[in-house]
Amino acid sequence: MNLKQLAAQLGLSPTTVSRALNGYPEVNAETRDRVLRAARETGYRPNRTAQRLATGKAGSIGLLMPVGAEVMSDLHFGEFLRGLGETAQKEDFHLVVMPADPADEVSALRSLATSGYVDGLCLAYIRENDSRIDLMESFGLPFIVHGRFFDPPHPYPLLDVDNEASFFEATRLLLQLGHSRIGLINGDEEFGFAIRRRDGVVKALAERGLTLEPRFHASEQMTEEGGQRATERFLAAPERPTALICASMVQALGIVRAIEQAGLTLGRDISLISYDDVLPLLRPELFTVPLTTTRSSLRMAGRRIAERLIHAIKGSTQDTLEELWRPELVVRASTGQAPGKN
Amino acid sequence: MNLKQLAAQLGLSPTTVSRALNGYPEVNAETRDRVLRAARETGYRPNRTAQRLATGKAGSIGLLMPVGAEVMSDLHFGEFLRGLGETAQKEDFHLVVMPADPADEVSALRSLATSGYVDGLCLAYIRENDSRIDLMESFGLPFIVHGRFFDPPHPYPLLDVDNEASFFEATRLLLQLGHSRIGLINGDEEFGFAIRRRDGVVKALAERGLTLEPRFHASEQMTEEGGQRATERFLAAPERPTALICASMVQALGIVRAIEQAGLTLGRDISLISYDDVLPLLRPELFTVPLTTTRSSLRMAGRRIAERLIHAIKGSTQDTLEELWRPELVVRASTGQAPGKN
Repeated sequence: MNLKQLAAQLGLSPTTVSRALNGYPEVNAETRDRVLRAARETGYRPNRTAQRLATGKAGSIGLLMPVGAEVMSDLHFGEFLRGLGETAQKEDFHLVVMPADPADEVSALRSLATSGYVDGLCLAYIRENDSRIDLMESFGLPFIVHGRFFDPPHPYPLLDVDNEASFFEATRLLLQLGHSRIGLINGDEEFGFAIRRRDGVVKALAERGLTLEPRFHASEQMTEEGGQRATERFLAAPERPTALICASMVQALGIVRAIEQAGLTLGRDISLISYDDVLPLLRPELFTVPLTTTRSSLRMAGRRIAERLIHAIKGSTQDTLEELWRPELVVRASTGQAPGKN
Repeated sequence: MNLKQLAAQLGLSPTTVSRALNGYPEVNAETRDRVLRAARETGYRPNRTAQRLATGKAGSIGLLMPVGAEVMSDLHFGEFLRGLGETAQKEDFHLVVMPADPADEVSALRSLATSGYVDGLCLAYIRENDSRIDLMESFGLPFIVHGRFFDPPHPYPLLDVDNEASFFEATRLLLQLGHSRIGLINGDEEFGFAIRRRDGVVKALAERGLTLEPRFHASEQMTEEGGQRATERFLAAPERPTALICASMVQALGIVRAIEQAGLTLGRDISLISYDDVLPLLRPELFTVPLTTTRSSLRMAGRRIAERLIHAIKGSTQDTLEELWRPELVVRASTGQAPGKN
């Protein structure tokens, strides 16, 4: 039972119910009594603090927010946080966000874990030689990893998307359309998700005896400008790629712009497949030439991670340890036959 | 003194210093002793928890994150949070983010304020008939408002941009260029910032005896799709506007797309001025026709707000209560003479 449902049941506005519960004078005594009685009967709990004191739990999920010059795109962080927040709000939890210098994440994690302010931790931004699993287990708090370690010593709770499969499949589609010069504009390959995506491209190319040419391979932060600059560089090469794969809709913005400015037509002269985190403000179907994407919702991942972590905090056993989501390939107009092949 | 500075002084990597401070076995004893001695001498405090216990402060800033179907764009929230985080990280503070149903913000604020987990509060998303200033003052915690109440009973700590002046100035530029049919694609006028921006447009038009026509006025969430749909509607009207003003670079994406799809040339057939929060991934100068904007950095606002709030938490008097930033008008190619006027 949340405030909105309680209000609907009483035929009152949520504002009135909230005011009544919080003892505001502008609500008359009769209404207040009605609201308080209904709150008791339905088990609605307006007093979070009392509840916290009774359970000994802070009611919170902790996570790091990387700050500094070299950070992942805010847009992706914001969308993931929104997902966590949506579940947290339903479960009456809050989020403790510890800003951390990427060079100093270990001590930020320790501070967070030992602060007494968090009941569980979500760890993300997993790197190639990342050995923080021992650290996470040393805290004695429930945790879940968004992403995956490489060569972990044993299973642990995680949720990841199958990044390798998604880029393997995207590359294979382009090969089937006759493309052989395929460029990759990846995220920063310091991070696991980008390493796995590159591996997917390389594996699909290898099946046809092809390799990912270094001059058509960019690994950088997921910005519009990065996408634009990399595309300009690729298009200036003597034998330019006829197809591109990129890691984010944010990069796609810049890529599409560079393609237009070069006087090329997307889907005819050059094909593009973008990874789509389902960012509500960058929708691939709204592009002038709608984009083919490999799609998995970052917000849904945040929701599911909060759900699993809160269940673990509440003492449930984690039945599922490893959850691997398979992105969908959604074909739209930005992918066409390789030029000269139709 | 932060970890990076300490590491630089010692000629070691931040990772090594962090491992030494946290007692990791892979650091040899000699290095560890050197690091610990330097940390003591320079006053570097690796142990946040001990410090908290000594001061009785949580070392945290609390804020609400609106969740639910009708929320402000995540991108703007993420960018503001990043600014708060940048200052918090320097000051060794963390952020407590309480997800809140917009209909239930009062009780979310109460929970946050009385939780014992926060030392100060940042309030944003101020509405027209918003009377939460009394509530904020009732908590006995330092607070700062991002935005401004309408008709407040007395002064209180705030930081806002002069939204009215920024859209007044933008409208005046368009009038000077000979435009008289000017459309406004605003943010949601439930919120103060959008109300003030509309007032700026109306005021500038009134100086020339013009009014803001309802059919060329949209008030909605700041999404790409919203911008595109509103523009399509405006352009379908018999006497379409020759110039548009919009509230966000996110809307501008959709607006530019609708203009292109209508076969019009931006800056020649139709002019556009966008508000620019300096979102790093949507840069107006990278658009095919670079956009004229009225610019104020949301991240800088976040930084400054955290700075003022943390000073207040540390017991400093707030010399400056009201801080009003004036956005800059940056003229680029998307604004030109009204058609038929050159």
